Amino acid sequence: MTRLQRAREAARERGVDALLVTPGPDLRYLIGAGGESHERLTCLVLPVDRDPVLVVPKLEHAGYGELPVATRTWIDGEDPHALVADLTGNAATVALADAMPAMHVLPLGQRLPAARQVLAAPILRELRMRKDETEIAELASVGAAIDRVHARVPEVLRAGRTEAEVGADIEALIVAEGHESAAFVIVGSGPNGASPHHEVSQRRIEHGDFVVVDIGGPNPAGYNSDSTRTYVVGEPAPERAEIYEVLRRAQQAAVDAVRPGATAESIDAAARSIIAEAGHGERFIHRTGHGIGLDVHEEPYIVEGNGLELAEGMAFSVEPGVYFAGEWGARIEDIVLVTADGVRPLNTQPHELVAV
Amino acid sequence: MTRLQRAREAARERGVDALLVTPGPDLRYLIGAGGESHERLTCLVLPVDRDPVLVVPKLEHAGYGELPVATRTWIDGEDPHALVADLTGNAATVALADAMPAMHVLPLGQRLPAARQVLAAPILRELRMRKDETEIAELASVGAAIDRVHARVPEVLRAGRTEAEVGADIEALIVAEGHESAAFVIVGSGPNGASPHHEVSQRRIEHGDFVVVDIGGPNPAGYNSDSTRTYVVGEPAPERAEIYEVLRRAQQAAVDAVRPGATAESIDAAARSIIAEAGHGERFIHRTGHGIGLDVHEEPYIVEGNGLELAEGMAFSVEPGVYFAGEWGARIEDIVLVTADGVRPLNTQPHELVAV
Repeated sequence: MTRLQRAREAARERGVDALLVTPGPDLRYLIGAGGESHERLTCLVLPVDRDPVLVVPKLEHAGYGELPVATRTWIDGEDPHALVADLTGNAATVALADAMPAMHVLPLGQRLPAARQVLAAPILRELRMRKDETEIAELASVGAAIDRVHARVPEVLRAGRTEAEVGADIEALIVAEGHESAAFVIVGSGPNGASPHHEVSQRRIEHGDFVVVDIGGPNPAGYNSDSTRTYVVGEPAPERAEIYEVLRRAQQAAVDAVRPGATAESIDAAARSIIAEAGHGERFIHRTGHGIGLDVHEEPYIVEGNGLELAEGMAFSVEPGVYFAGEWGARIEDIVLVTADGVRPLNTQPHELVAV
Repeated sequence: MTRLQRAREAARERGVDALLVTPGPDLRYLIGAGGESHERLTCLVLPVDRDPVLVVPKLEHAGYGELPVATRTWIDGEDPHALVADLTGNAATVALADAMPAMHVLPLGQRLPAARQVLAAPILRELRMRKDETEIAELASVGAAIDRVHARVPEVLRAGRTEAEVGADIEALIVAEGHESAAFVIVGSGPNGASPHHEVSQRRIEHGDFVVVDIGGPNPAGYNSDSTRTYVVGEPAPERAEIYEVLRRAQQAAVDAVRPGATAESIDAAARSIIAEAGHGERFIHRTGHGIGLDVHEEPYIVEGNGLELAEGMAFSVEPGVYFAGEWGARIEDIVLVTADGVRPLNTQPHELVAV
């Protein structure tokens, strides 16, 4: 079954009469093209009882190439929301892509006054969470690309440079190694390493600093990488090296716990318990991981309270960290894939602290 | 009056009780920070009768720095949509930012079942269309930055290179000259110049090619540049040089027509009539321009049928083009600002065809 057919079946099972999908990762998943997201409406209409149609501005139509669905173009002056409503027919329930902006949600509500609007996420999430062979190949390839970037970080990371300067060089390496763009570049040196959401700053890297480098971006097919390594400039302070070793063991334990049937929260617990046993539980202030694919953050979330059972084809990050506010931080992150009988890491750079 | 105060007054005049603004250009316009746009809800609640509050995930709060509004943080496990509903109170009508994704529109509708949802665009559009002094300074500065990139295009554009190679170099120049990123890089050589929405391809640039280079991106404050120049590799064919000269006159005539009180469609007509008189009317297949600011495309649109009267502070592109399918194309684009008594171009690179 194609992805479109599977989405239609999943919609039918949930009592949804049509999926309406505007540009974004859901559209890219379903038809292989993410669409543009300007002010003009592009929308895939996928009724459960008729063939799907992509409504698209005439001006943008040529950009799509071969598509697995029929298209219906519109030009300025036409009402594209009315066109989508026509193609949707007498649906009692329509499911909207999570990313559909209000500027289309509200007009579609007006043109389909009898249809209840629900979110498409519960339908598409199940499909998108289990990666197919094509998707696994893309994630493996983009994972290898970000590994090559980490292998070259020592070329650009040194004392005296600012985080922003190092970040700009890393951004260029991310593109040079096969990404379409750098979606995020975190270079958290010294005390900045203690803020998980830090990006880069004008701080100059100093001798002895721990530096958290968390980087990734989409490849041309839209699949994302996301990998973190922690570097040290010169020799690490011995007590920090010891804590880093705890982190390394915690990350490995979580990866080793991944297999079909294990719960998402059990992976979180595997990492967290080791850090807590070493007396640093309160230093690990975020969830252990997030799913990844066409979105950098998607299901499954590897977090306490998520009883979801892992299944073959799921891909997510395993990224415990320790954060000492005002002083330093460290994190190790790999993307892993659930296989038929265990786990396959899609990042393979060594986990040891890298001295530069 | 601050932008927040003006937005509140505009909402009140239109009978709206509260604005709800999620991350995007509207939020950046109102509070100076665009917010993150991950799965966690960030939302400015701006009631007409109470002080505004920014609802923001605790994890992201530190990234904001100084803000002109109070904040209310939430952590995983809390219901952020219920929190926004509480802060909104008994609103009969709430206006949603255009960019708010369905994943927040629908839950907010459930938490505020008595409130009619409308779009905030008609309220914020009026404000955002008229740039204030700070915004004009940003647009002028980012316009000068993209001018510097065009001045350097001859360093990287030459026969034998692919459009993609030239585009990658231009992308680096865009960042080097002070943009935060390259939002778009069109290098349309030879027949590809006839597709206004072409980006780059593996086509190798040939001697004699016309090459349309349409580039821009946001500066660190979020304001966008957008400028097109057409280059020729070697000597242009004389009949093409002649048509290019018609295009140059058409673009200049449209710019010269800009002044307060002139209609948007009259600017379009000024360019279009000159190209039509020369017998190439059907080669100019798009509108003459679009507003620009925190969005690359925003109001006012310079298009037939738009009777909007231009007013001081409006900024938009003037970008007529001619397209000969399968052969070649050309376009000239400057951003211009409506002043108290006329027009001020924010791009000042010469308009003549540039031979490289």
